[in-house]
Amino acid sequence: MSTLATTANHQIRLARRPHGMVVRDDWSYTTETAGEPDEGGVLVKTLALSLDPAMRGWMNEGKSYIAPVGIGEVMRAGGIGKVVATKTPKFAVGDRVNGALGVQEYARFDAGQLGKGALTKIDLRLGTMTQWLNVLGMPGMTGYFGLMDVGQPKAGETVVVSGAAGAVGQTVGQLAKILGCRAVGIAGGPAKCEWVVKELGFDACIDYKAGPIKDGLKAHCPAGVDIYFDNVGGEILDAVLTRINRKARIVICGAISQYNNTDKVVGPANYLSLLVNRARMEGIVVFDNVARFGTAVAELAGYLHDGRMKSREDIVFGLETFPEALLKLFNGENFGKLVLQVAED
Amino acid sequence: MSTLATTANHQIRLARRPHGMVVRDDWSYTTETAGEPDEGGVLVKTLALSLDPAMRGWMNEGKSYIAPVGIGEVMRAGGIGKVVATKTPKFAVGDRVNGALGVQEYARFDAGQLGKGALTKIDLRLGTMTQWLNVLGMPGMTGYFGLMDVGQPKAGETVVVSGAAGAVGQTVGQLAKILGCRAVGIAGGPAKCEWVVKELGFDACIDYKAGPIKDGLKAHCPAGVDIYFDNVGGEILDAVLTRINRKARIVICGAISQYNNTDKVVGPANYLSLLVNRARMEGIVVFDNVARFGTAVAELAGYLHDGRMKSREDIVFGLETFPEALLKLFNGENFGKLVLQVAED
Repeated sequence: MSTLATTANHQIRLARRPHGMVVRDDWSYTTETAGEPDEGGVLVKTLALSLDPAMRGWMNEGKSYIAPVGIGEVMRAGGIGKVVATKTPKFAVGDRVNGALGVQEYARFDAGQLGKGALTKIDLRLGTMTQWLNVLGMPGMTGYFGLMDVGQPKAGETVVVSGAAGAVGQTVGQLAKILGCRAVGIAGGPAKCEWVVKELGFDACIDYKAGPIKDGLKAHCPAGVDIYFDNVGGEILDAVLTRINRKARIVICGAISQYNNTDKVVGPANYLSLLVNRARMEGIVVFDNVARFGTAVAELAGYLHDGRMKSREDIVFGLETFPEALLKLFNGENFGKLVLQVAED
Repeated sequence: MSTLATTANHQIRLARRPHGMVVRDDWSYTTETAGEPDEGGVLVKTLALSLDPAMRGWMNEGKSYIAPVGIGEVMRAGGIGKVVATKTPKFAVGDRVNGALGVQEYARFDAGQLGKGALTKIDLRLGTMTQWLNVLGMPGMTGYFGLMDVGQPKAGETVVVSGAAGAVGQTVGQLAKILGCRAVGIAGGPAKCEWVVKELGFDACIDYKAGPIKDGLKAHCPAGVDIYFDNVGGEILDAVLTRINRKARIVICGAISQYNNTDKVVGPANYLSLLVNRARMEGIVVFDNVARFGTAVAELAGYLHDGRMKSREDIVFGLETFPEALLKLFNGENFGKLVLQVAED
């Protein structure tokens, strides 16, 4: 007999909408019991959660590509878990799965959710658990489809990516290199920049904390910028706009510099460079490509396997550290894909 | 024997780079003689010049899609003229031609320029002289290729165009209607808005001087905005960004609200709507489509002929009125395509 009926499930919930930077009082802590799954459902034990800049957007009221997290709801988070109880032949106890587990120790999924593909089994031979939250997970998929579909890279072109040491950025730059492009990163601080160049093999990395971005772009993109993959917005987007080539493609993936603004977002003052250069700026949302994830994962797993792609995760431990861990994303402290490990596998 | 050697050619030249709004002292007035064409060249008498918002950009120093007009040079302007002397079998005296004549009474073209297609003959059976500067000219081509190539309209979609009573706007909206779209204009003042709806057949027109654009968009675009053809930038672009649909296309054609800024251009603060809506913002430059002008002119002339497309020109007379006439574009005074008639045909 299972003890799930009495097993504690600690949870972190959104207590209120944050104003500007997220603070501890924006969260509440609750404990429920894990409980048995319903008929046709499963119970998943959370092993590791993905901490992503997009989470900040989910906390805001208002229309977006996904409904906001409701006040009092368990905070939304993608993660990797282990099936610990099952009442469906689709999943066996011990299966490792990927899905929106939420910031909690246990997540129950019912037959309806499973029918809509809420959980997918993962194969740990393709990558480690944390790689499944990085290159093989949402960030990797975001980088892959953003670069391929909107960026449409051609060998010899120059690809610039901001947040280069972050989860999406590392995939974008390494993929650009594999495709024969010049890859130039933008990251904060010499340690990240050095890692991006020496370990990941980017051609160059501009330290935005060290001096004007424009100078770095001039020095490292002598043939201009054909593709800019933007994770940060703000001044960096504006600087890159002054260096784009004719028919350049700008992938709008995020704007981490703007997410905690209490004032209005600052728009790109140099957007008329799009006109002068007949260039394009296009937004992407990774969820649109779910049907093609399998192919992309297989391709990226191949690169991980043959060593052409590397990954780095910044792992923080313990569910209760979630509020502080999340802030690492916004002050640029994380080095590699930020992962919250909740339990040992 | 010709008297061209003694015929006066009055000219308007750029005296200095304007700071903010263009003023009379930014121009100088010169008189040369018309002169005989060189061997292989022609002399064209200017009949009518096209006055365009883009002219403001040509007056600025700096990299753009076309070299700036040099200090002391005759101001660049497209126009319609009549060949009055020829030393090439390609053109006969009396041919009506279209080309960059400049703000002057006579323009000489040499064999090299003609070889590069500097002048094209126009057929006045397809449209009147001023229509050749409007629907059949650069503005029409700009509207046509911007809407078709970047906008990619599908029947039933909602197309919004700013500067709706202007030269580009009238083509865009009427073409959208012909293609089965809902066409919503944005223009300044009740007279223009009434004309756009009653005469041109747009479904609605929002008077940006009458109230918040957002309210007008809500009222007149109940199914959201699929295509926005932007001629103005600034607050109007920002307002439309809040109403775009998923996979919307924004054609960046111009930003007349920003051209005379002495401060920095104001960027679209709501650009992250591109991300949320997986939408695209893309710049166009009409000169890229020269090879396809013939087909587009034939199509648009057909619509003029069968009455499905109407045109309106705002004609100002006399070369010497150029400085004041140009300002009508920036204070919104022109009603229809602004044309400077320099001589009677």
